Amino acid sequence: MAYDASTLPDVSGMTVGIIGGTGDQGRGLAYRFARAGQTVLIGSRSAERAAQSAEEIAALPGVPAGAEVAGAGNEEVARLSDVVVIAVPWDGHAATVAALAEPLAGKIVIDCVNPLGFDKQGPYALAVPEGSAVQQAAGMLPDSRVCAAFNHVSAPLLADPEIERIELDVLICTEDRELVGVVAALAARIPGMRGVYAGRLRNAHQIEAFTANLIAINKRYKAHAGIRVTDL
Amino acid sequence: MAYDASTLPDVSGMTVGIIGGTGDQGRGLAYRFARAGQTVLIGSRSAERAAQSAEEIAALPGVPAGAEVAGAGNEEVARLSDVVVIAVPWDGHAATVAALAEPLAGKIVIDCVNPLGFDKQGPYALAVPEGSAVQQAAGMLPDSRVCAAFNHVSAPLLADPEIERIELDVLICTEDRELVGVVAALAARIPGMRGVYAGRLRNAHQIEAFTANLIAINKRYKAHAGIRVTDL
Repeated sequence: MAYDASTLPDVSGMTVGIIGGTGDQGRGLAYRFARAGQTVLIGSRSAERAAQSAEEIAALPGVPAGAEVAGAGNEEVARLSDVVVIAVPWDGHAATVAALAEPLAGKIVIDCVNPLGFDKQGPYALAVPEGSAVQQAAGMLPDSRVCAAFNHVSAPLLADPEIERIELDVLICTEDRELVGVVAALAARIPGMRGVYAGRLRNAHQIEAFTANLIAINKRYKAHAGIRVTDL
Repeated sequence: MAYDASTLPDVSGMTVGIIGGTGDQGRGLAYRFARAGQTVLIGSRSAERAAQSAEEIAALPGVPAGAEVAGAGNEEVARLSDVVVIAVPWDGHAATVAALAEPLAGKIVIDCVNPLGFDKQGPYALAVPEGSAVQQAAGMLPDSRVCAAFNHVSAPLLADPEIERIELDVLICTEDRELVGVVAALAARIPGMRGVYAGRLRNAHQIEAFTANLIAINKRYKAHAGIRVTDL
């Protein structure tokens, strides 16, 4: 089975919630999904900040007039969304996810959090007792359909309204093979992106950790690097 | 500093030794370097098997007549080469590298070994006390110039004489910034490849481990996947 975008399911009617939607990564993804015409809910601990962020995103270039972009508290966003992206900083990951287990039951959960530390030599991968951020989330969300994806997407590229296409592959790690099509379809809503199945959750650590390498590449080559899988 | 192949040093005069040159990965790399006109030494525990392998490689399509491809024991290959690629199976890595510390002193050492385990669910990354195979090698080779590179190159693609170009990026992890140009130049000897600096040795684990994800991708999409860094 080669990669074939034409077989992906129609996800245009799904509501996408972003937990941590006021941070750089979450906000950037929210913008791209809104620009694609997806209904987007921005989640934050502060419903007020979420609403303000939603208003700003709805007004950005390329977002269709009348686009449905709203903000609310994290719990309400989890409850109202079909697909929920976890885009909080790593140090708030466990607490945020644990508190949302009930509203996230039955939902598709996409974890894009990268557990990284930084010192004067730059970024490095943090050890995670569960193996990876997404495995930590999966352990806390036994009734959700969990995957890692969108770990490598550059926030500055997402945020730049001048950029139409973002050429990279979204690597999807999950135990739930049927989830792959949905998440790949969501990735494909952003022009230039493909969603590619990249292994089970036990192989997600290195995908999260690889963000440290992308940061090293960005620094050395003054780029906003992502990756493309070849021969696909 | 963007990626610029025109600034790479001339490495065409360097002798490239492959420790583990009779295995799939080593043999494939030896073939591609020989095909590019590089002098190649195949190393093996058995000098006889190495010589036989060298003879076979020299006779493969695309290798120039009169190409210098020879085989010898690992220690002799280490001593006679300018650049030495470590391409042994992970379970022989520590013993092989430790035994070569003296002949490898002052040499450029490229470790392309991926510490992976396999069970009925497929491949997974092994924990390495030193962090990664290349860190283990660097610890044992204090007088060598060590990097990780060529971890993601598909052995079947390397071996297929019909394939002219192998489109992927060789990610280079090292503490030795000047090494990057040499290894990138060596990568560029194989049409389609670029060598890209991808961080310090402490961020090599995830590059080695990512090979498990590439194997998952290969299985799912019937591909010989590699990766290309975007925006470079």
